[in-house]
Amino acid sequence: MQEVLKIFKIGGGIIDDPGQLQQFLGELAKLDNKIMLVHGGGKGASQMLQELGIEPKMVQGRRITDAATLDIVTMFYAGKTNKQVVAGLQAYGVNALGLSGADGNVIRASKRPVREIDYGFVGDLDEQSINTELLQSLLGAGLTPVFCAITHDGQGQLLNTNADTIASSLARALAPFHQVELHFCFEKDGVLADVQDENSVIPQITPDEYQALKAQGVIAAGMVPKLDNAFAALEAGVERVVIENALKINEPVKTILCRS
Amino acid sequence: MQEVLKIFKIGGGIIDDPGQLQQFLGELAKLDNKIMLVHGGGKGASQMLQELGIEPKMVQGRRITDAATLDIVTMFYAGKTNKQVVAGLQAYGVNALGLSGADGNVIRASKRPVREIDYGFVGDLDEQSINTELLQSLLGAGLTPVFCAITHDGQGQLLNTNADTIASSLARALAPFHQVELHFCFEKDGVLADVQDENSVIPQITPDEYQALKAQGVIAAGMVPKLDNAFAALEAGVERVVIENALKINEPVKTILCRS
Repeated sequence: MQEVLKIFKIGGGIIDDPGQLQQFLGELAKLDNKIMLVHGGGKGASQMLQELGIEPKMVQGRRITDAATLDIVTMFYAGKTNKQVVAGLQAYGVNALGLSGADGNVIRASKRPVREIDYGFVGDLDEQSINTELLQSLLGAGLTPVFCAITHDGQGQLLNTNADTIASSLARALAPFHQVELHFCFEKDGVLADVQDENSVIPQITPDEYQALKAQGVIAAGMVPKLDNAFAALEAGVERVVIENALKINEPVKTILCRS
Repeated sequence: MQEVLKIFKIGGGIIDDPGQLQQFLGELAKLDNKIMLVHGGGKGASQMLQELGIEPKMVQGRRITDAATLDIVTMFYAGKTNKQVVAGLQAYGVNALGLSGADGNVIRASKRPVREIDYGFVGDLDEQSINTELLQSLLGAGLTPVFCAITHDGQGQLLNTNADTIASSLARALAPFHQVELHFCFEKDGVLADVQDENSVIPQITPDEYQALKAQGVIAAGMVPKLDNAFAALEAGVERVVIENALKINEPVKTILCRS
């Protein structure tokens, strides 16, 4: 029986609220499983770009990471947010270790190729990106890796990388060694059957049910790429994917995506 | 025979010059010893504070780290500088891992007590600050720890800490396990017998010679606390302290401080 490894992803909403972040870290510290945490960015970096007069570069509605933007997001994600999360977990007795992809070469990415859009310094991951050997040894040493959404290309270039992608790539890469649970935490209690009703959390969704819910339009818009990604992770060997409220990870209400 | 561990400290001058930083990292990559690197801040953080309209707080000529300043220096030191150095070393094939003191609880500090001056969020180190067990295991895994000048208090508070102090505390704490060499790198080739003459590098200084050079006024001002600190490290078991040019670490010209 392999050991359970829970990989949590938290997004901007919770990072922007110090009280909620603290509460989440306290709940995380109650778990006695092996844990990894991936955090997104929050609004701080955008605010700082604005204060410094660096205009957000958009092409066809997509945000471009130019050199000045990369500098600021690296400072925010790998500096401020990552170190606050790590210090916060340490205060709860969790031996957290902050990582960008460059640290220990733990996530190596490729700069996204320029096609219709040049996204700038954005990194994409592939099957070889994750250094599972180092992660296994860090987990074995009792450490809790905390990832920010910055990777590198192995040639000295840092790259901005989607935090959801990092979380699911970690889950897939570590699935051969652990019973991996991938937890996407956000502001709602799970996937809602009725967007207007916060109490309509769907407790469990199989791939077939997911196709039906998409066809009915119950699951739409922003949730679709997230859930497509989640079901792909299940197919690739991840044990379960959980969609839940960041402040209620130790409560029973949540959506569990399962293989069948 | 214990293995040699070389701990390098680089300061602001080299960090502010990307070309020189690159050159230094290339020279560092040529060494086949176990290595650690501690980096200071550079002018970037001060410039950003200014651009954001955060006035430097000074009391009796000493800089105060208030909450806003701590945020910016954490972003700069732990985010931008640390990750650029780590990614740069990775490009040279060195498996660098960036660390603040909070990461893996590797350096725990105490907030400096308020006496005549309240320095704000500044951390002081003591004999128990360094987590030698984790460092030994990282070195054993073939990693090269890269430290920024940010520590934590174990209760969730990050603290700004002098990089020279971090370097010598690491050296002293690891002296029981390795033959530790502590390398302070800066813009000059070593300690100069004549400040006007760049070629007057003193190749070796014993504690007795140091007292004489201080009495003669050859070594004065900013060098005194650095060298006092260095000789204290030697007394505490560090094998040698080297004062050298960051761009010439693989050349013979340097000042070696030795126990006798």
